[in-house]
Amino acid sequence: MMEDAVSSEDAMAAAIAEASLGHACRRIVPVILAGGSGTRLWPMSREQFPKQLIDVVGRDSLLQATVTRMEGFVGGFDVDTQPIIVCGEEHRFQTEEQVRACGVCAKIIVEPARRDTAPALTLAALAAVNQDDDAIMVVMPSDHSISDIPALHRAIAIAAEYAEHSMIVTLGVAPTRPDTGFGYIRIGDALENGAHLIDRFVEKPTTELAAQYVAAGTYWWNSGIFIVRAGVWLEALAKLNGDMHAACTAAFAEGKADDNFIRPCPFQFGRVPADSIDYAVMEHIGAAGSPCKGVVVPLAAGWSDLGSWDAVWEAMEKDGLGNVASGRVVFEGATSSYVRAEGGRLVACVGTSNVVVVDTDDAVLVADRSHAQDIKTLVARFREQRAPEAETHRKVRRPWGFYDAIERGERFQVKRIVVAPGARLSLQMHHHRAEHWVVVRGTALVTRGEDQFLLSENQSTFIPLGVQHRLENPGKVQLEIIEVQSGSYLGEDDIVRLDDCYGRI
Amino acid sequence: MMEDAVSSEDAMAAAIAEASLGHACRRIVPVILAGGSGTRLWPMSREQFPKQLIDVVGRDSLLQATVTRMEGFVGGFDVDTQPIIVCGEEHRFQTEEQVRACGVCAKIIVEPARRDTAPALTLAALAAVNQDDDAIMVVMPSDHSISDIPALHRAIAIAAEYAEHSMIVTLGVAPTRPDTGFGYIRIGDALENGAHLIDRFVEKPTTELAAQYVAAGTYWWNSGIFIVRAGVWLEALAKLNGDMHAACTAAFAEGKADDNFIRPCPFQFGRVPADSIDYAVMEHIGAAGSPCKGVVVPLAAGWSDLGSWDAVWEAMEKDGLGNVASGRVVFEGATSSYVRAEGGRLVACVGTSNVVVVDTDDAVLVADRSHAQDIKTLVARFREQRAPEAETHRKVRRPWGFYDAIERGERFQVKRIVVAPGARLSLQMHHHRAEHWVVVRGTALVTRGEDQFLLSENQSTFIPLGVQHRLENPGKVQLEIIEVQSGSYLGEDDIVRLDDCYGRI
Repeated sequence: MMEDAVSSEDAMAAAIAEASLGHACRRIVPVILAGGSGTRLWPMSREQFPKQLIDVVGRDSLLQATVTRMEGFVGGFDVDTQPIIVCGEEHRFQTEEQVRACGVCAKIIVEPARRDTAPALTLAALAAVNQDDDAIMVVMPSDHSISDIPALHRAIAIAAEYAEHSMIVTLGVAPTRPDTGFGYIRIGDALENGAHLIDRFVEKPTTELAAQYVAAGTYWWNSGIFIVRAGVWLEALAKLNGDMHAACTAAFAEGKADDNFIRPCPFQFGRVPADSIDYAVMEHIGAAGSPCKGVVVPLAAGWSDLGSWDAVWEAMEKDGLGNVASGRVVFEGATSSYVRAEGGRLVACVGTSNVVVVDTDDAVLVADRSHAQDIKTLVARFREQRAPEAETHRKVRRPWGFYDAIERGERFQVKRIVVAPGARLSLQMHHHRAEHWVVVRGTALVTRGEDQFLLSENQSTFIPLGVQHRLENPGKVQLEIIEVQSGSYLGEDDIVRLDDCYGRI
Repeated sequence: MMEDAVSSEDAMAAAIAEASLGHACRRIVPVILAGGSGTRLWPMSREQFPKQLIDVVGRDSLLQATVTRMEGFVGGFDVDTQPIIVCGEEHRFQTEEQVRACGVCAKIIVEPARRDTAPALTLAALAAVNQDDDAIMVVMPSDHSISDIPALHRAIAIAAEYAEHSMIVTLGVAPTRPDTGFGYIRIGDALENGAHLIDRFVEKPTTELAAQYVAAGTYWWNSGIFIVRAGVWLEALAKLNGDMHAACTAAFAEGKADDNFIRPCPFQFGRVPADSIDYAVMEHIGAAGSPCKGVVVPLAAGWSDLGSWDAVWEAMEKDGLGNVASGRVVFEGATSSYVRAEGGRLVACVGTSNVVVVDTDDAVLVADRSHAQDIKTLVARFREQRAPEAETHRKVRRPWGFYDAIERGERFQVKRIVVAPGARLSLQMHHHRAEHWVVVRGTALVTRGEDQFLLSENQSTFIPLGVQHRLENPGKVQLEIIEVQSGSYLGEDDIVRLDDCYGRI
């Protein structure tokens, strides 16, 4: 696909000559777009627990793998140890907790509403510009997998050189099949180091068109990884989409920073038009009057967008029969199957081929791999029916830990509640239920009405209906209690929060 | 398949002439063989909860459907309202409970050990002979389904006429496919009413042979339903298998009858050779020197042995796409699939064809329907590995009700315990665990050490390690408690039973 060296060098020289907007910079800031709510990996991913928070391919979550992906980068640039992460309001605590668990200190921008990727990137650019006008942003989706990190770093090092010269660079993946789930990039003139000018962006094609693209050899998949100087992005956006630029700028300027989060102004952000990076900017660059050039650098690093369970199966290491298993799984004559047992149950596959089985505490998916994309339709149906299984897991994360609703009867419910060391639930009260608490691990500090007392393993207490109470873990190990609720109404919304250290009142 | 009338009548006359052993009798006693431990319907069926105790095709269990199957019989015979049921020691309480729930009072013979069907039938014959030498036994496996009861009754009425004349009669099913899972009966001379003399029994054939049998039109499936006078059976067995006859007779004579059960002597029964009805008797009748004649009567009544999940799918009513579902099941583009959601979870099938999905509290099966027979191999593997999922369900039935181990942690376990009105657990003690009990429904009478007290809904108590205790339901509604166990060892075998009204000490 490389053109001859002379024309390639000519094109590069021309491109750099045209790109005269900025000055040189040797600092890279990783930007992670973690606002997704992908449900194509249902039932693992849920509205409240999206794909990036799940350990899809390894021990870490996809977000955690992304946060640490630039570690060890040696491309002649300094990589900022504090990445910028953009996430949604409802995922902020889990995002923060997962990032902290990696030992990384991040700037977390909390989007007050969903506006697609272009506004998210713009908020990150505004934060980056705040400290350093010319930081090179390496913008990464938070929910993809890349197996060959050195290869990724090599591609980014090449891309950063172009970005430094004020181009907007994207990493492109040579297609291996006529996938209709990706956008494609038609490559233009060859530049140095395998890079090309971007001829044009093409939306997700039909199967026929996709096959033509693959055959042509001049179309690459859009990986969604962008390398661009913050100032260059903002300038390009200002020219191409003035409204978005203005509204994002106002939202950022009028925003607040609390403990760990940067919070743009909800009112101003509400006025931001929703759009993707591709639509808002990338499809226009290179055209007549475009503010800057686009470059695509090839990425051959085992990239996958993990956009369906089929893609997950593709990305995983398989046994001799093509099977992939995690959890308590038994195969008997099964082939090319992906099985994930998350609920602690035993999952047995007998004689199956090309199936996906995902077992969770409250929902089980059995899908033919070739129909894995239809899970989108399924989840849309669940949402219409307001099925709780579209929204949350049985195990619900909270800033203080989690609870798991392990059993439910007519007038009672049993929860397992796990509280992190030093964490405390809100001071609260219920109108319709009484609660028994049995400590099964650690030590609890209990507030009940006017009293405060400690309970250790194997001790219990009773919280009558209507009495203010609070549960705290004053210790150094996890606190676990079994809570037996009883009453006529047991919904999560029967809670009056009187005080909360996580600002949830 | 009917031969011409003249030869048919001749054969009948000859058969009746030969069968001159007994005198006439107009009483039928249903005999139900419920000693099976079939695991081909795993994970619904388990070692401790076999197929006959499950509601496979309807609201009732297969055993219950069998127990009530002779209701409304109008064939000129009196049907004894007290059937004889033969079951295994480990299933006696559940068998009794299910039969009682049908409003039927049965004689339950508890086999001290498994010896296959011929000894089971012999015990039933000994019990039948005890009251009436010439009762006609209608012997039915407890785990088959029959949809057209009037057609069954017509076949039995015909069969009973031959049985009355001292023949051993079996019901045969015209084969619809070359199934290798059944024994076949080669039919001989035609008799009246569609019946035939039995030419010979053929063991489960190869696929090739089975195809030849189906094409020949002279082989019927052996339904396992036998109609024979008790005295005729015993006499035939005495001649063909004297050891079995003698050992069964001794075991029955030296047995005991307690509350609801007839219990043959374990020592004598231990000496009984294991054998099936077919091998022990049926394959020899008709041969030279045979003590009696065998007759087969055709059964066209929607019979299925439900011998695999595939057979269950075949037997069930399907939607327009061939799907069968029970529980919370959602199909998206699925066809010809059988899905059973028993664990309360949502089960979603996307794009699947010809799969079986059975979801239970602790195990999930996903099988290709054409490989449903391989579940046998799978369960054998589980047994080798001593996987608890081969043995019991998470919900464990007890004579007083059941418990469900809903959650387990490192040093704790949570159980939901349901006690039937008037029932009581044993007086017991644990060496390694303390227990918290929270009543969530009904009223509990608690014995704790020297104390005895009542607990009602929303009250709780604590049973320290080493203290004698007993739980009783003195009320008229079910008692439900949540038990939180804590301790270093939580196995079921840490129990010292001091007193038990079910004889389990």
